Amino acid sequence: MTISSPTAEVLTIGDEILFGQITDTNTQWIGTQLTDIGIRPVRKTSVGDNKQDILNAFKEASQRANVVIVTGGLGPTRDDITKHTFCKYFGTELEINQEALALITEFFAKRGRVMTELNIQQAALPKNCTYIPNLWGTAPGMWFEKDDVIYVSLPGVPYEMKSLMEFEILPRLKNRFSTQIIQHKSIRTIGIGESFLAEKIAPWEDALPAHIKLAYLPHFGQVRLRLTGTGTDQALLDEQLQEQVSLVLPIIGEHVFGFDADELETVIGTLLVNSQATVGTAESCTGGFVANQITGVPGSSKYYEGSVVSYSNEVKMNVLGVSRDTLEAFGAVSEQTAREMAEGVRRLLNTTFAISTTGIAGPDGGTAEKPVGTVWIACATPDETFTQLLTLRNNRKINIELTSSYALNLLRKTILSSNLAEKN
Amino acid sequence: MTISSPTAEVLTIGDEILFGQITDTNTQWIGTQLTDIGIRPVRKTSVGDNKQDILNAFKEASQRANVVIVTGGLGPTRDDITKHTFCKYFGTELEINQEALALITEFFAKRGRVMTELNIQQAALPKNCTYIPNLWGTAPGMWFEKDDVIYVSLPGVPYEMKSLMEFEILPRLKNRFSTQIIQHKSIRTIGIGESFLAEKIAPWEDALPAHIKLAYLPHFGQVRLRLTGTGTDQALLDEQLQEQVSLVLPIIGEHVFGFDADELETVIGTLLVNSQATVGTAESCTGGFVANQITGVPGSSKYYEGSVVSYSNEVKMNVLGVSRDTLEAFGAVSEQTAREMAEGVRRLLNTTFAISTTGIAGPDGGTAEKPVGTVWIACATPDETFTQLLTLRNNRKINIELTSSYALNLLRKTILSSNLAEKN
Repeated sequence: MTISSPTAEVLTIGDEILFGQITDTNTQWIGTQLTDIGIRPVRKTSVGDNKQDILNAFKEASQRANVVIVTGGLGPTRDDITKHTFCKYFGTELEINQEALALITEFFAKRGRVMTELNIQQAALPKNCTYIPNLWGTAPGMWFEKDDVIYVSLPGVPYEMKSLMEFEILPRLKNRFSTQIIQHKSIRTIGIGESFLAEKIAPWEDALPAHIKLAYLPHFGQVRLRLTGTGTDQALLDEQLQEQVSLVLPIIGEHVFGFDADELETVIGTLLVNSQATVGTAESCTGGFVANQITGVPGSSKYYEGSVVSYSNEVKMNVLGVSRDTLEAFGAVSEQTAREMAEGVRRLLNTTFAISTTGIAGPDGGTAEKPVGTVWIACATPDETFTQLLTLRNNRKINIELTSSYALNLLRKTILSSNLAEKN
Repeated sequence: MTISSPTAEVLTIGDEILFGQITDTNTQWIGTQLTDIGIRPVRKTSVGDNKQDILNAFKEASQRANVVIVTGGLGPTRDDITKHTFCKYFGTELEINQEALALITEFFAKRGRVMTELNIQQAALPKNCTYIPNLWGTAPGMWFEKDDVIYVSLPGVPYEMKSLMEFEILPRLKNRFSTQIIQHKSIRTIGIGESFLAEKIAPWEDALPAHIKLAYLPHFGQVRLRLTGTGTDQALLDEQLQEQVSLVLPIIGEHVFGFDADELETVIGTLLVNSQATVGTAESCTGGFVANQITGVPGSSKYYEGSVVSYSNEVKMNVLGVSRDTLEAFGAVSEQTAREMAEGVRRLLNTTFAISTTGIAGPDGGTAEKPVGTVWIACATPDETFTQLLTLRNNRKINIELTSSYALNLLRKTILSSNLAEKN
């Protein structure tokens, strides 16, 4: 197909979405992915598990868009009717796809689980579909084409849907449609608000060439600056984006921790590996979230020793060696306690660096003197210990994630300023 | 209007939603609210800031639903075109609504802010609309009726939209329609796959009365069975749903951990509080995720002492007291190590119960004998220690979340079978 500006409709199927019983995170993600490869979403539609409604939605979407992405309704149970409705729509019938059956059989064999008749039926696909193997679950993806419209059917399980899109569907769509090259370059910042950032870089932003657009994507104390360049010459586009980055870095450098897919925890991992250093964590208010962030990185066992989640004062004293005097004089949420937690866990786990968090995540536990959102973090090194006071919000979940981001950033800055990083 | 079972379509307007630049939390909330008053959502639609697309969406929705709830596109900036499109659709024009103007003027006066011409124009409404005062922002709500279809237009700002719905729109809709009651009852299960569950309860599912529907909602090793009943007598409906629950419980009871909004970690919290017991965790492959789940519950400090994330063998030995012999003879991922980790952390943190996780989360570290996804979990009590082998998937993130679910479930079952729970 040679369509100058291809369009897409995203169709989700399931009563649970209409009734608001599950949060639909799929369609937002699909919207960004399609936009990124130059396919413009023109409509999002959700219908229930009702054959006629789904048929109507197929027909209407086909009149509006070049691509119809359908998610949901592919599970093994009887309330999932997408496949049968596709058959009706295309005037065909289901037949067992041997490739799909083999993959599903292997999926169960690997896990030493018995296949049921329902699982076998998951390999039954409309005769006119192109089978898209699902390596992440048991519901196959499907690709249909009719009257110059592409229909893609994916399971609703976010992880399976995203994997199928990323590895199978987006590449196919890209080489089917892509007319222009769309290139992204992201600058990852932390510790500066969106509006302050915007003010700082306003002159640079105003001077951006017309074919390079800027988006601010804030998320838990971080702001991602995403440059999107459109053109026809890949190399030239990369060069132009890189030039803009080098122009803005001198203005905001201190707040930049990485680029593109960099995350704080991956950047820290690289720093620690390069400086042959290790880290441990002592967490109170974050309750394991920091450890979870660090260990979310494959290979983190190379530099991460572990964590002590000291939710009670007893654990702070008995395991981390925080002194009773400190707790009684300054309280669990104090600079002194944060310091002793970091130094204590560094001793206990025998690591190069250690970070600690102690605070009032909420919703309860706040006082006039220490309201909800009061958090102390610390980072201990072989030579000294750095501390930082955070004054956060009223929401427990947000406070935990913000504290984790700031603690990891404190670690990052500490590693960078330490001799260890310099000597490499 | 006397419609036996009124239907609704929720229409959101804005490029930012289609392109995935913002998370749409409005439509899920609206879905639950409409369902609760017996108005059945039959479709959710999102269109961009394009006049023709919006006109088409109005027309299509009016052919499907008795009520069309429209959010977004009411801000003061020029890309917000909902009002003008309503005028075109109804063949009318805008005129300043004096009530609205007074309220907006007051809104700015209160905040000591200057009104711009753009703000004044927010008081300009289509002549045929019923003005719905917005006490929470500057964009008025609007109520239209044409050919027995109700159109409601609300600002997209979640807080304003929700306030307008709650105090103005839902009450009007409720007394307008002699609505049916829609009641939900969820059964939360864990440790049994969707298809196995479906086979087990097939006879029960087939025997469900026509006015009670069943949906399977799987998520990380759990499956939520959602019963949706429709009727006119609230008490009778509750009774009928409860009856179906009591019919199915004997079949799947061992897999049921709760109902409706129950989560594993909240259920465990209640069990621990009731048995005046405490718990600690020792985590290897889950890297703090279990601790994070448990501490995500407000008030968890009452029963949660803390966790040792023992990522390295040194920490397993030096902090948890796992014996070197065990690690050398059986390896870190073994039943013996899981057992010693649980017993060790229980001693260290001095808790009633303790759970441990050790496994190969992936993507690396797998062997022929212990492939990625091999996980041992254990739960220690004052009297004995229970262990369980898990054979999971190839994805690190999923393995961590599944392990956490199964470990929490092992704890739940252990508490239930312990004398502690019985004595209460």
